[in-house]
Amino acid sequence: MTDRPSTPLLDRVTAPADLKRFSDGDLRRLADELRSETIWTVSQTGGHFGAGLGVVEMTVALHAVFDTPRDKLIWDVSHQCYPHKILTGRRGRMGTIRQKDGLSGFTKRSESPYDPFGAAHSSTSISAALGFAVARDLGGDCDTGHGDAIAVIGDGALSGGMAYEAMNNAGHLGKRLIVILNDNEMSIAPPTGAMSSYLSRLYAGAPFQELKAAAKGAVSLLPEPFQEGARRAKELLKAATVGGTLFEELGFSYIGPIDGHDMDQLLAILRTVKARADGPVLIHAITKKGKGYAEHRPDRGHATAKFDIRTGEQKKAPANAPSYTKVFAQTLIREAEDDPQIVAVTAAMPDGTGLDLFGERFPARTFDVGIAEQHAVTFCAGMAAGGLKPFCAIYSTFLQRGYDQIVHDVAIQRLPVRFAIDRAGLVGADGATHAGSYDVAFLANLPDFVVMAAADEAELRHMVVTALSIGDRPSAFRFPRGEGVGVDLPERGEVLEIGRGRLIAEGNRVAILNFGARLKEVREAAEALAQKGITPTIADARFAKPLDRDLILQLARHHEALITLEEGAVGGFGSHVAHLLAEEGVFDTGLKYRSMVLPDIFIDQASPEDMYAVARMNASDIEAKVLDVLGVARMERRA
Amino acid sequence: MTDRPSTPLLDRVTAPADLKRFSDGDLRRLADELRSETIWTVSQTGGHFGAGLGVVEMTVALHAVFDTPRDKLIWDVSHQCYPHKILTGRRGRMGTIRQKDGLSGFTKRSESPYDPFGAAHSSTSISAALGFAVARDLGGDCDTGHGDAIAVIGDGALSGGMAYEAMNNAGHLGKRLIVILNDNEMSIAPPTGAMSSYLSRLYAGAPFQELKAAAKGAVSLLPEPFQEGARRAKELLKAATVGGTLFEELGFSYIGPIDGHDMDQLLAILRTVKARADGPVLIHAITKKGKGYAEHRPDRGHATAKFDIRTGEQKKAPANAPSYTKVFAQTLIREAEDDPQIVAVTAAMPDGTGLDLFGERFPARTFDVGIAEQHAVTFCAGMAAGGLKPFCAIYSTFLQRGYDQIVHDVAIQRLPVRFAIDRAGLVGADGATHAGSYDVAFLANLPDFVVMAAADEAELRHMVVTALSIGDRPSAFRFPRGEGVGVDLPERGEVLEIGRGRLIAEGNRVAILNFGARLKEVREAAEALAQKGITPTIADARFAKPLDRDLILQLARHHEALITLEEGAVGGFGSHVAHLLAEEGVFDTGLKYRSMVLPDIFIDQASPEDMYAVARMNASDIEAKVLDVLGVARMERRA
Repeated sequence: MTDRPSTPLLDRVTAPADLKRFSDGDLRRLADELRSETIWTVSQTGGHFGAGLGVVEMTVALHAVFDTPRDKLIWDVSHQCYPHKILTGRRGRMGTIRQKDGLSGFTKRSESPYDPFGAAHSSTSISAALGFAVARDLGGDCDTGHGDAIAVIGDGALSGGMAYEAMNNAGHLGKRLIVILNDNEMSIAPPTGAMSSYLSRLYAGAPFQELKAAAKGAVSLLPEPFQEGARRAKELLKAATVGGTLFEELGFSYIGPIDGHDMDQLLAILRTVKARADGPVLIHAITKKGKGYAEHRPDRGHATAKFDIRTGEQKKAPANAPSYTKVFAQTLIREAEDDPQIVAVTAAMPDGTGLDLFGERFPARTFDVGIAEQHAVTFCAGMAAGGLKPFCAIYSTFLQRGYDQIVHDVAIQRLPVRFAIDRAGLVGADGATHAGSYDVAFLANLPDFVVMAAADEAELRHMVVTALSIGDRPSAFRFPRGEGVGVDLPERGEVLEIGRGRLIAEGNRVAILNFGARLKEVREAAEALAQKGITPTIADARFAKPLDRDLILQLARHHEALITLEEGAVGGFGSHVAHLLAEEGVFDTGLKYRSMVLPDIFIDQASPEDMYAVARMNASDIEAKVLDVLGVARMERRA
Repeated sequence: MTDRPSTPLLDRVTAPADLKRFSDGDLRRLADELRSETIWTVSQTGGHFGAGLGVVEMTVALHAVFDTPRDKLIWDVSHQCYPHKILTGRRGRMGTIRQKDGLSGFTKRSESPYDPFGAAHSSTSISAALGFAVARDLGGDCDTGHGDAIAVIGDGALSGGMAYEAMNNAGHLGKRLIVILNDNEMSIAPPTGAMSSYLSRLYAGAPFQELKAAAKGAVSLLPEPFQEGARRAKELLKAATVGGTLFEELGFSYIGPIDGHDMDQLLAILRTVKARADGPVLIHAITKKGKGYAEHRPDRGHATAKFDIRTGEQKKAPANAPSYTKVFAQTLIREAEDDPQIVAVTAAMPDGTGLDLFGERFPARTFDVGIAEQHAVTFCAGMAAGGLKPFCAIYSTFLQRGYDQIVHDVAIQRLPVRFAIDRAGLVGADGATHAGSYDVAFLANLPDFVVMAAADEAELRHMVVTALSIGDRPSAFRFPRGEGVGVDLPERGEVLEIGRGRLIAEGNRVAILNFGARLKEVREAAEALAQKGITPTIADARFAKPLDRDLILQLARHHEALITLEEGAVGGFGSHVAHLLAEEGVFDTGLKYRSMVLPDIFIDQASPEDMYAVARMNASDIEAKVLDVLGVARMERRA
């Protein structure tokens, strides 16, 4: 472990206003210190890393030129916010980042006035900044101030449709608004898409040198600060063919590309824009993700565990079982060996979804569509209508982006798209914005959808194969982040009977009906209960839709109490079970029914176990629930 | 009423293949007949109209040049599909369009092999077509054929982010794909947005005449078929500044603009594209919505009731009460007179949401962001963070497009955006794709959200004012399509107590807990039940969140049976009530609890009353439910 770096200038910064007293040379040196500090901080804590290193100079320049928090600085996705947090009064708490009761890994309104808008999902910043710009111009409320609205958005985030929707609207409204395109040619994976190629051509065509010269003088806000001849030629042609850059066509003044690590350029451009912008401006800055430490690593240090600064070695706990993600990928690869109609789609998360492995084996059948969940879903629907067998692999939280497409293009048309829903349930360090809480509720009330949840990694293997076998309607299977529970994995998955759960253990008085990956905790609770003379029946539903009516009604009929358990919010599995029980008149004569669901709060980051403690879904909570529902305590409480 | 037009050529068409035998001149005349037939048809039935009249020539040309259904022709939104339906074997059933058991008003896979992909929501066609193109190239299944994939998308639909996501992906993949941009400068309302201005500049800069000449000869697939000098100048500049049209930058070959009503141009261009395209091509066609009948009406005949062809007079039944939409708009206007921080946002539906009226009164505080629900929601979140009081007025079905933004940008940040959710519940002629079935389920499990439903138009007035008063968290109020029930409207709304329902009538044995606009049917059911000696208690919940715990537990405690009722799917109000009852142990000792929700099917178009009959939610169904839950029949069934 390296010692904490020496940071004499940074030590003088308690708030961004302090930067106003720094010379440009000091700001350059401050950026160097901020980079060292960021590297050191993340080596101690782990976290998102590469993105922050790419915007160190930009962070310093923005806070030096603009007047935050009066000016609203919005970081898209906000993986890159660590240097910003260090400069904005949170340096002393950086050691707590992404930990329980610590700083969020993202910007967060409740954390600091310097975070005017939280982010974690991609492509929202221009919409939010435009909202601030309108609020400014219409008065807003008193303490909002009248400052600038500045969105910093990566090239990857620009593949999201809502960024385009926002630019389309901003260009139309024509209000003063500053968008900084942080172009590092990397989101999490290298971005794909025509826009990405377009951006590459933009900076291939314009060497920094020219702009650097221009930037040192007075930079004009004319579309591009090129020399007069080129501009005149361009205007001439514009009249005939409506040429010009894509951003200009959308109503933005385009400035760039500039070198996002050159403090002189950054300061000159930002000062000029601040002084002269009278409409939407896009500043195209080229940066290197991971700059100064991880720029040569394949993922450029996107996210990391704690590490040794000298060796770069990460301190990860060894895995006890394969991750669910890997089991999904390996199973799909195995099936795709036999079935040429299997195709797989990811929305810019090939690593996270395991489709990087699938893509190595079947490059022509793997599609990374960019951060574009809406398109991903309907693209899959089209492929399904064309006779392929698409697996749409998207995290639960990001699948929310494709919800209407799931309803309108997949479910209503009953097309056999298979949704592989990773990161179902609580996810740990990424916190509330990444929790996969709602997918069961928003899928299980769609007619004819098959909705499964894997209780362990072997179940996941079966469910991949089961989804593959469902050729006449949509299906989804959800599974959690992280490692499996270590069960034996069968070589090949088996096709499960649709809508049929399984009895795990026969007991009496109380039945626990599990849906999803808390089965291990249910078993642990049962062991503890056995010590107290209570032997619960345990069943695993496997399907939230179609429900196993026979199993559920049997459990209800033969037990005093029935408890459902799922890693999701109200409205999902338990609600469907309750609806069935109500319609069948089971409640008429009394049943101690309880539904353990995620609580009605957004749970801040912590370890998954700690988050499930907050959610009261660990083994001890299940045990307590059983005792409560069977015990006398409740009767007293109601009396 | 005019007589049915004479259509000798059209009478010879039983399937698109028949068009192959027609001369170009015959195709021109056929288009004229098809236009007359379309006008006559809609005069008899009502329906979407203007969009179809704008694409009559394009419909003929596409079916004449391409080989449908082997080639996949996908109409975006598909309001414009009436001429397509007439040509593809459905002419004899056009009199049933949008009616119960009749043709859908949209393309629909189950209706015809000529409808390879259904649509009704906007901006999906390029994604779906790309899916077909990939399926073609990867083999797909046997009966898919190996044809072209063609998307016809309007300029309004191009404001939707997913269209951009799809182009970004299509340009990257480089597969043969044909996109026809049907540019009529009208979606439902005149489109706003920078893209729209860009398209106007494109065709302002290129007179049809030039292209017409070019089209008659051999059309090159070079980006734009302009004269050599301009092209060379352009290429020259491209090297220096990366100019060129926006579509070319996204990897499409751009052809146009062409006159979409000029059959010669259309045929020449389509034949050339068919012969020579080897990647994604975008054909930019200029058309007039309503061409030949309604092109001079303000909405260009977007949707119409039955009408008299000679006078244009529509045969609408007179309204008995103001529409919910109008009550919403008038209430918001009244409040905005006093409160300058109220702003309103629509996603391209100013008329449908009533914001046209708001916009007339407060143009600077009204924002039509285009068909861009994702941006609409986050833009509102930004304005709320900036101190304004945004009302985001979106139909229930379209709000699905902004779901992730509601979770991530509004709910997690607890920002006071007010969602005015029109078209909640079943909507009639637009059918399943437009049903507002899911909003309560997807909103009520978000922490701290306030979710209301209006039982009548006076309640809606109160709820607008209540939402306005909620300044510390998000809120939503839903209301149905169509007229109110005719209750007295108070001059000003009153702020309702949050989370407090109201008792409508005290009875015994059974309590009906209503949420939403079926209260009238509940009252009717109660009247019928009174004849049978049963006096139900009736309550109106007003809030699905927060629930009125006291009211619900009181009702449960003092009645043998409790029935909830809502115009939504499982997972919504009833599920939250059931969860409360379960957690409070109410089911332990028995309660005849039932939850009347929309059934687990997609309900095809019919009158709203007929659709609610299918859903078993009319007064007679409520009556039957009460009799069933109280009667002996059920006991027998369970025995």
